[in-house]
Amino acid sequence: MSRNIPLKGIIAYPITPFSAEGMVDINKYKTLLERMLKAGVHAVAPLGSAGVLPYLSDPEREAIVMATMEQVAGRVPVMIGVSGLTTERVVYHARFAEKQGAAAVMVIPMSYWKLTETEIFAHFDKVASAISVPIMAYNNPATGGLDMSPEFLAKLLKIPNVTMIKESTGDVSRLHRLVQAAGEDVAFYNGSNPLALDAFVAGATGWCTAAPNLIPQLNLDLYAAITKGNLAVALAVFRKQLSVLQFIVAGGLPRTVAAGLEILGINAGHLRAPLAKLSEADTEQLRKILSALA
Amino acid sequence: MSRNIPLKGIIAYPITPFSAEGMVDINKYKTLLERMLKAGVHAVAPLGSAGVLPYLSDPEREAIVMATMEQVAGRVPVMIGVSGLTTERVVYHARFAEKQGAAAVMVIPMSYWKLTETEIFAHFDKVASAISVPIMAYNNPATGGLDMSPEFLAKLLKIPNVTMIKESTGDVSRLHRLVQAAGEDVAFYNGSNPLALDAFVAGATGWCTAAPNLIPQLNLDLYAAITKGNLAVALAVFRKQLSVLQFIVAGGLPRTVAAGLEILGINAGHLRAPLAKLSEADTEQLRKILSALA
Amino acid sequence: MSRNIPLKGIIAYPITPFSAEGMVDINKYKTLLERMLKAGVHAVAPLGSAGVLPYLSDPEREAIVMATMEQVAGRVPVMIGVSGLTTERVVYHARFAEKQGAAAVMVIPMSYWKLTETEIFAHFDKVASAISVPIMAYNNPATGGLDMSPEFLAKLLKIPNVTMIKESTGDVSRLHRLVQAAGEDVAFYNGSNPLALDAFVAGATGWCTAAPNLIPQLNLDLYAAITKGNLAVALAVFRKQLSVLQFIVAGGLPRTVAAGLEILGINAGHLRAPLAKLSEADTEQLRKILSALA
Amino acid sequence: MSRNIPLKGIIAYPITPFSAEGMVDINKYKTLLERMLKAGVHAVAPLGSAGVLPYLSDPEREAIVMATMEQVAGRVPVMIGVSGLTTERVVYHARFAEKQGAAAVMVIPMSYWKLTETEIFAHFDKVASAISVPIMAYNNPATGGLDMSPEFLAKLLKIPNVTMIKESTGDVSRLHRLVQAAGEDVAFYNGSNPLALDAFVAGATGWCTAAPNLIPQLNLDLYAAITKGNLAVALAVFRKQLSVLQFIVAGGLPRTVAAGLEILGINAGHLRAPLAKLSEADTEQLRKILSALA
Repeated sequence: MSRNIPLKGIIAYPITPFSAEGMVDINKYKTLLERMLKAGVHAVAPLGSAGVLPYLSDPEREAIVMATMEQVAGRVPVMIGVSGLTTERVVYHARFAEKQGAAAVMVIPMSYWKLTETEIFAHFDKVASAISVPIMAYNNPATGGLDMSPEFLAKLLKIPNVTMIKESTGDVSRLHRLVQAAGEDVAFYNGSNPLALDAFVAGATGWCTAAPNLIPQLNLDLYAAITKGNLAVALAVFRKQLSVLQFIVAGGLPRTVAAGLEILGINAGHLRAPLAKLSEADTEQLRKILSALA
Repeated sequence: MSRNIPLKGIIAYPITPFSAEGMVDINKYKTLLERMLKAGVHAVAPLGSAGVLPYLSDPEREAIVMATMEQVAGRVPVMIGVSGLTTERVVYHARFAEKQGAAAVMVIPMSYWKLTETEIFAHFDKVASAISVPIMAYNNPATGGLDMSPEFLAKLLKIPNVTMIKESTGDVSRLHRLVQAAGEDVAFYNGSNPLALDAFVAGATGWCTAAPNLIPQLNLDLYAAITKGNLAVALAVFRKQLSVLQFIVAGGLPRTVAAGLEILGINAGHLRAPLAKLSEADTEQLRKILSALA
Repeated sequence: MSRNIPLKGIIAYPITPFSAEGMVDINKYKTLLERMLKAGVHAVAPLGSAGVLPYLSDPEREAIVMATMEQVAGRVPVMIGVSGLTTERVVYHARFAEKQGAAAVMVIPMSYWKLTETEIFAHFDKVASAISVPIMAYNNPATGGLDMSPEFLAKLLKIPNVTMIKESTGDVSRLHRLVQAAGEDVAFYNGSNPLALDAFVAGATGWCTAAPNLIPQLNLDLYAAITKGNLAVALAVFRKQLSVLQFIVAGGLPRTVAAGLEILGINAGHLRAPLAKLSEADTEQLRKILSALA
Repeated sequence: MSRNIPLKGIIAYPITPFSAEGMVDINKYKTLLERMLKAGVHAVAPLGSAGVLPYLSDPEREAIVMATMEQVAGRVPVMIGVSGLTTERVVYHARFAEKQGAAAVMVIPMSYWKLTETEIFAHFDKVASAISVPIMAYNNPATGGLDMSPEFLAKLLKIPNVTMIKESTGDVSRLHRLVQAAGEDVAFYNGSNPLALDAFVAGATGWCTAAPNLIPQLNLDLYAAITKGNLAVALAVFRKQLSVLQFIVAGGLPRTVAAGLEILGINAGHLRAPLAKLSEADTEQLRKILSALA
């Protein structure tokens, strides 16, 4: 049976801009999304961490999905983040995404209470059985609060339409262990920006990243060097962009990407409280990092 | 200026029972609540971690608040958990709780994105300025995903109606540091069950706990021994209940408290997915621990 | 069978002073030791962490043992630290200590390579079978690099002359777990200074501490309050000395105790490289903390 | 000024075999060393972690150094581990190594007491000023107990004959940060076996490893693929040996390498207590892993 793997390369994560009054700003969202599409990213993934999914109401999430499908208009595959604390809500959003034409959905198990592996497996199983599009199972304990081992992630791939794994711990040894556990043809994706080079070397199918909001060409160049097997160029282009990748991770994607866009002269709107604007000192540091690339 | 500290002693946290169809079961909730009131707890605190606050919709939260006020009917102070990911929602629920007659509200800063101290402070400040009842600031990185140092917690007490601190890391040295930072008259509460004795010795005003769902008399006996300064009795009664306290923390309160209630012959309803029933092996272990107390 | 438990109360750990040329200064050592004896400590324990045991050659260790026995001259029990990386050397030093009249020896399993529990048990077993005096098994992962659980420590007590446990992780819940695993009559000692009050409340037989180098009376006062069951006095006297306890742990005992002695007008000699004198800024902070007690 | 960088490629770490009576077995040591030399490793490094340096007496260390120089007889560069807890002893052993003809010495700062960065820097500085051969500064908190950041390691390179860095945390991001801090021409070495591929991709000059005791050809093949820039071959040969690398790290090098040698039919002597032979179950697992390679 061949598995449905609709994504590869640079998978771009848009941020969600808000108005001064705290409402989701759909027009601004479309503008920011279009910039990345124009730059040539291979797929887009709204409602991820960068898109502050957990801070949005259900109607806001649906509005973002519809705006994305309309704006992308089939140019690249769209993967929708459908995560939530309760299984019932994740099923609801997964079905909505499928109905709107998403090529895939992404699910990170979220914690308030730590979940057992049995609970996490059942969670994925219920969501998977409610839809037909493939699921990317996403591990990021730093945001979701739950940690899934590579060996457990390999087990999730036994669920028919869980076909992709996204790993964001930043530990390259987990990627190698995933291959050991799931086989060399496993479709895995890197979600840790500073690990971009290493993950591709380890065999990653794609890079899930908010960096194309700021430096899409450098991200695409890294992927191109890897697909050509040109290690020296890959290392050089990776080193060139590393400071940006480190910075946006350390400061939190919503804050740092918004600040970076403003530095580049693009209005990124407001953040939703309690998230606040990047401090002036940090913004200055980012300005220097971005200037060094120009 | 004297500060408003409406809570002391054993502050009981009810669980939230669900029907087989996954709906909040308000009648069962009232029954479970009444058991603890009858047992003599000094205050109740619905919509905490044990009450799976983050897994509830806004209307469900409001229904729990109203049911609690009605059932308690002024017999003890009621503190309502009003936490959420966005400041706007916390303000909303804090106002609702105040309007319904809560003696206090509890706020744990929650993370998807890690918050800076500046962001956390602004979050508390905005909520505090929207209401008049006192706030208990609650630190529990294991559930909320954010860790506030004792020194930072002391700073939160500068906000006029943030008058109480709840600490749940289980590190007694943090309680001593809080006293160093905030002064010996600081009103702090312990939320780590296995630290119950040590926290009272360190000067805690109260113990925020779901244990009274299962062993209210032992909880009350510990507090009584402490208020009498009887260290030997306090140690003995603490040691007697320690295995229960350790067990309910290790297995997650919603699962273990529900299992314990069933063992005691009380219908605790269902859990909301992805949370699942305690495993049979763990339930058997809890049965042994509870039998040893009978 | 009754077990040999020769130590209780305040067990004082002397530092090891060095000359400007880097030699152990035995005369200065005796002077510093005598101060604590005069102050009324209940036992002394040379060649512990404070005494920089691992930094001494075998002959230096033996010289310290002999100087201690001579200076103490039977006034209080002496426990000798005999730890080392290899079992053969620990046996050697344990026999030496016994021959010189030590009331007990202390053994911390030390790591370069992490040891399995089987290896650690065999290590204690071999040392125990080589001597007749009782052994205090000491857990301190922060220095020794190995962590033994309370449950494993309880197993060590099955070895006939392992009769005492010293716990230094600073986690009071481990003390309660040790009692659960080893029974309420277990002789355990606290080695974490900031946990002094809490450990006594949990039932500790003694406090192993370098603090009597600086504040012997406050240490003794805490023990006296505890033995009288006077919780309010115990808390007050603990809070009074807590800043000193926190400071000497945070800055490393050899450096901070030496600096504190100098502040008190007592020549503490030199440290052995790579350990270096406390920085001027930290020394100033300690001066303020000590002044506040005067 | 050009810096002295005498090592590259596969730098092999011999183990230290003991007799049944617990003595260092020099003849067996030479035999084991010769096997790796014959296999074609690019350098050897006795008295590292695999060689249980900290468990040896000073005369034993010197005997190993002399045996190594004699056996190698100039065929490859020799780097001697000269680490110890006190600066005085490290200087002593560094001078001895230099006198015996070592091409370099390796120094890991070791802790009983955690050292400040000032203390660590002074430690390296004193050792460096006592000798003329280049020093490899080695970071491995899992064994040495101290963690040096990439930024601090870059500072150590300011000391004239500290010319090489060995990093063993297994975190590839540290290697990239080291390049950011020290420049692209920094000579760094990987000491984390499971990171072998990733470290070479990140630009490592060599791989410090005990794996050539068991699988020298696979280790050499990886380096050859990297020097040819053949990423696909490098990934394949890395994946082939990864289970061995993971196993020897997880079980501790001295135990697992000795067990592996026995499996390969080579007498590896005894371990020094408290280190004990690998368990039968683990040995069986290693047998399977090695069989799969044959």
